[in-house]
Amino acid sequence: MPIENAPFSAAEYARRIALTRTAMAAAGIDVLFTVDPSNQAWLTGYDGWSFYVHQGVILGLDTDPVWWGRVQDANGARRTVWMEEADILGYADDYVQSTTRHPMEDLAERLKARGHDRARIGVEMENYYYSARAHAVLTAQLPAATFVDATALVNWQRGPKSDEELGFIRKAARISERIVRLAIERAEPGMRKNELVGEITRAAYYGDGDAWGDYPAIVPLTPSGADASAPHLTWNGDEMRRGEATFFELSGCYRRYHAPLCRTVHLGPPPQKMVDASEALVAGLNAGLEAARAGNRAADIANALNGELARVGIDRGGRCGYPIGLSYPPDWGERTASLRPTDDTVLVPGMTFHFMPGLWMDDWGLETTETILIRENGPAEALCNVERKLFVKDWAG
Amino acid sequence: MPIENAPFSAAEYARRIALTRTAMAAAGIDVLFTVDPSNQAWLTGYDGWSFYVHQGVILGLDTDPVWWGRVQDANGARRTVWMEEADILGYADDYVQSTTRHPMEDLAERLKARGHDRARIGVEMENYYYSARAHAVLTAQLPAATFVDATALVNWQRGPKSDEELGFIRKAARISERIVRLAIERAEPGMRKNELVGEITRAAYYGDGDAWGDYPAIVPLTPSGADASAPHLTWNGDEMRRGEATFFELSGCYRRYHAPLCRTVHLGPPPQKMVDASEALVAGLNAGLEAARAGNRAADIANALNGELARVGIDRGGRCGYPIGLSYPPDWGERTASLRPTDDTVLVPGMTFHFMPGLWMDDWGLETTETILIRENGPAEALCNVERKLFVKDWAG
Repeated sequence: MPIENAPFSAAEYARRIALTRTAMAAAGIDVLFTVDPSNQAWLTGYDGWSFYVHQGVILGLDTDPVWWGRVQDANGARRTVWMEEADILGYADDYVQSTTRHPMEDLAERLKARGHDRARIGVEMENYYYSARAHAVLTAQLPAATFVDATALVNWQRGPKSDEELGFIRKAARISERIVRLAIERAEPGMRKNELVGEITRAAYYGDGDAWGDYPAIVPLTPSGADASAPHLTWNGDEMRRGEATFFELSGCYRRYHAPLCRTVHLGPPPQKMVDASEALVAGLNAGLEAARAGNRAADIANALNGELARVGIDRGGRCGYPIGLSYPPDWGERTASLRPTDDTVLVPGMTFHFMPGLWMDDWGLETTETILIRENGPAEALCNVERKLFVKDWAG
Repeated sequence: MPIENAPFSAAEYARRIALTRTAMAAAGIDVLFTVDPSNQAWLTGYDGWSFYVHQGVILGLDTDPVWWGRVQDANGARRTVWMEEADILGYADDYVQSTTRHPMEDLAERLKARGHDRARIGVEMENYYYSARAHAVLTAQLPAATFVDATALVNWQRGPKSDEELGFIRKAARISERIVRLAIERAEPGMRKNELVGEITRAAYYGDGDAWGDYPAIVPLTPSGADASAPHLTWNGDEMRRGEATFFELSGCYRRYHAPLCRTVHLGPPPQKMVDASEALVAGLNAGLEAARAGNRAADIANALNGELARVGIDRGGRCGYPIGLSYPPDWGERTASLRPTDDTVLVPGMTFHFMPGLWMDDWGLETTETILIRENGPAEALCNVERKLFVKDWAG
C-alpha cells in the first residue's frame, strides 16, 4: 500500500518532514509527539474520525513517523498512511475512557522501547487533543525525559502551501462558490433554515465534478436577524423572514482542505446602516487584499481593513482572519498567526488566510469574507469568485 | 429573555443543578469549572460552535451558573442561556490564540473576584477543551486554591434522562430511522459515496416534521469493503461496488440530542461468513436487550452479547457501547460508563446507551446497533425501529 493510500506525493511528505525536523532541532526537541489531527494528516496522511480518543504521531530526527492510536483505528491507519506496517502502533481497547488506565501509559512504554526515556520530548500543551490529564500521566511515566512545549510547531510549517496543496484548496474554493451561491439563491421568506442548510450541505458533499466534497471542520453558521449578532450560532427550524439579514459562514472541503467564504443576504430592503457597513467592509477587504503582499506583515492587512471601517465609525476590535488549509473539527483555522494589529508575522508566498472581518453588532450581523493567497508579487489573490457585497433580495421593488 | 431561550423548563435546569451540586459536595468541590460543551449546554442551555476557543461554566454551591467565554460569543450566550446578563462574562478577543496571553488568566481573575482564590476548584482534567496549558496557567494564577479532578462529574449526572430529554431523543430516533432507511434504499453499484452522504445529511437536517435536524456530533461513517475493517473512516468520492458491504454509522440529532443507529448493506450476495456473523450479532443484540434491565450492570449487556458471538467463534474484544444523549463534537458518547465485561455500573431507568457491537475484521466490517433505553421494568427498549439484520441488495436473483 503505502504511498498510494495518501493524498500527496512522497516528495511532498519528505518536504513536510524536513521542515518539521528543522523546527524540532531549533527548539531542541529530540522526538515530537503531535496529537493535532491536522498535523497527523499533514505528516502521514492519516484520516479518520477517531480523534475523540487519544492518538498521535511520533516523529524522531532520523526515522519515519510512527502513527499511534487505538487498536481498532490502526486498521484505519493501514488504509490511509504512507508508512509501513511496523510504523503503525495500536493500544488495547480497554484503555479507552477507562478510569483505571490511561492511553498515555501505553505511549510512554512505546517511547521507552524506542530509547526516548531520557529524550527532550515535544508535546502540544495547547491542543484540544492533549488533555491536562494526558500530560500529567505522560510526564509521570517518563520521569527522566524533558518535556518541551511544541504547541503549533508543526502548524507553523503548514503555513506556506505547496503547489499540491494549493490544488486542493482551489478545488475546495470551487465548492465554496457553489454553496454560497446556492444559499443566496434559495434564501427567501418562509424557507426553514434547517432545510436550507440541508440543501447547502448536500451540495457541499456532491462537490464540483471530480472534487468530491468532504466534511468541513465547522458546520454551516447561518444565523438571521438578531441571532447574527453572535458569530457562532448554527441553525434551527425557524423560517427566514423579510426584514432580516442572514450571514452564511461556509466552506467547501476537498480531502480536508478548506476555502472558507462568507456572504450575507438581506430579505427585503436593508437599513441604511447595514448598507453603509457593508460598503465600508468591502472597501476594507479591497484595501486588505492590496496590503496582503509578500514581505508585509499580518498586521498590515488588519490595519488596512480597520482604516476603511473607521471612516464609517466602526471599531470592530478582534482579529480579522487566520491561516487556513488542512483541518479537522473543531476549527478550520491553523492557530498560528492572527490578522490583528499586534501580529508581526511576515507574509510569505503560498500562505493562505481566511480574511474574515465579521461584523457582530448589537442586534444584527454581517459577514463578507475571502480566502486569500499570498503571491510572489502583487496583492493577494482571492481564491473564490462571488461578488463582494451585501446581497439584497427585494420582491417588493 | 432567560428561560424562553433555552430548550428545557426551569424545573429541568433546577434538577440538573441540584444533581451536580450534590456530586460537587460529595467530591469536596466548592466551585466547578466545566468546559465540556455538552455539560455547558446541559446546565445553562448554551449552544454555539464556539468550543474551539476557551470557554466554560462556573458553578458554585449557591448561586446561578455563570457562562464565561470570548466576548463575541457572549452575544451567543445572551441568545441561548437561561441566566441573566450578570451571569454572562466575556474575555477580550486578544486572548484568543495569543502567544503572550492566555484566557485562563482572565478566568483566574473572575474566580478571584468571586472569592474563589482559596477554594477547592473542580476542573475536567480529561477533556478535549481543557488543554494541558490551560491547567498549567490556571493553577499558576491561583496558587492558594486546591484543584480537584472533576472529569465526568457532570457527565455522570447526565446519565439517567428526564422525560423532557427522552422526548428529544425520541425525535432524534425518528430522524435516525429515516436516514438509515434512505441509505439502504439509495445504496447501489455506481452510487458515489459522497453523493449518498449528501442525500443522507440533507434528510438528517430536514428532520421529521417539527423535529428539525441539528448536526450530529460525529459525521456519517460509511466505509465499504475493506475500508469497513476500520471503524472511523468517513467517505470519499468512490463508487459503491457489487460484492462489498457498507456500514452506515449515523445519528439523527434534535437540539443536540442523539439516537445513533447503524445498519450494513451488502450489494450482491454476501459471503457466508458475513451472514453467519450478522446472525450472531443480531442474536447478541437481542440477548443484550434482555440483559439491559434496571438493577443489572453494564457488564451484563456485554457478557450477553459476547456469549452469542462466541457461538460463531467471534471474540470481538473492545467495548460494545456507551451512554448517549446531548453531545457536541468530537464524540456523541457521554464518556462515563462503557458496555464492557469489566464495567460494574448499575443500570438505572432512564439511562440511554448506544449498544454498539461493531465487527471490524481483517478485510470487512459489519455494524448493526441500537440506541436503547433502560426501563423501570423488563428489558430495554430499542428506540429506533429498523429491521435488525444485514441488508442484502441482490439484483441478480
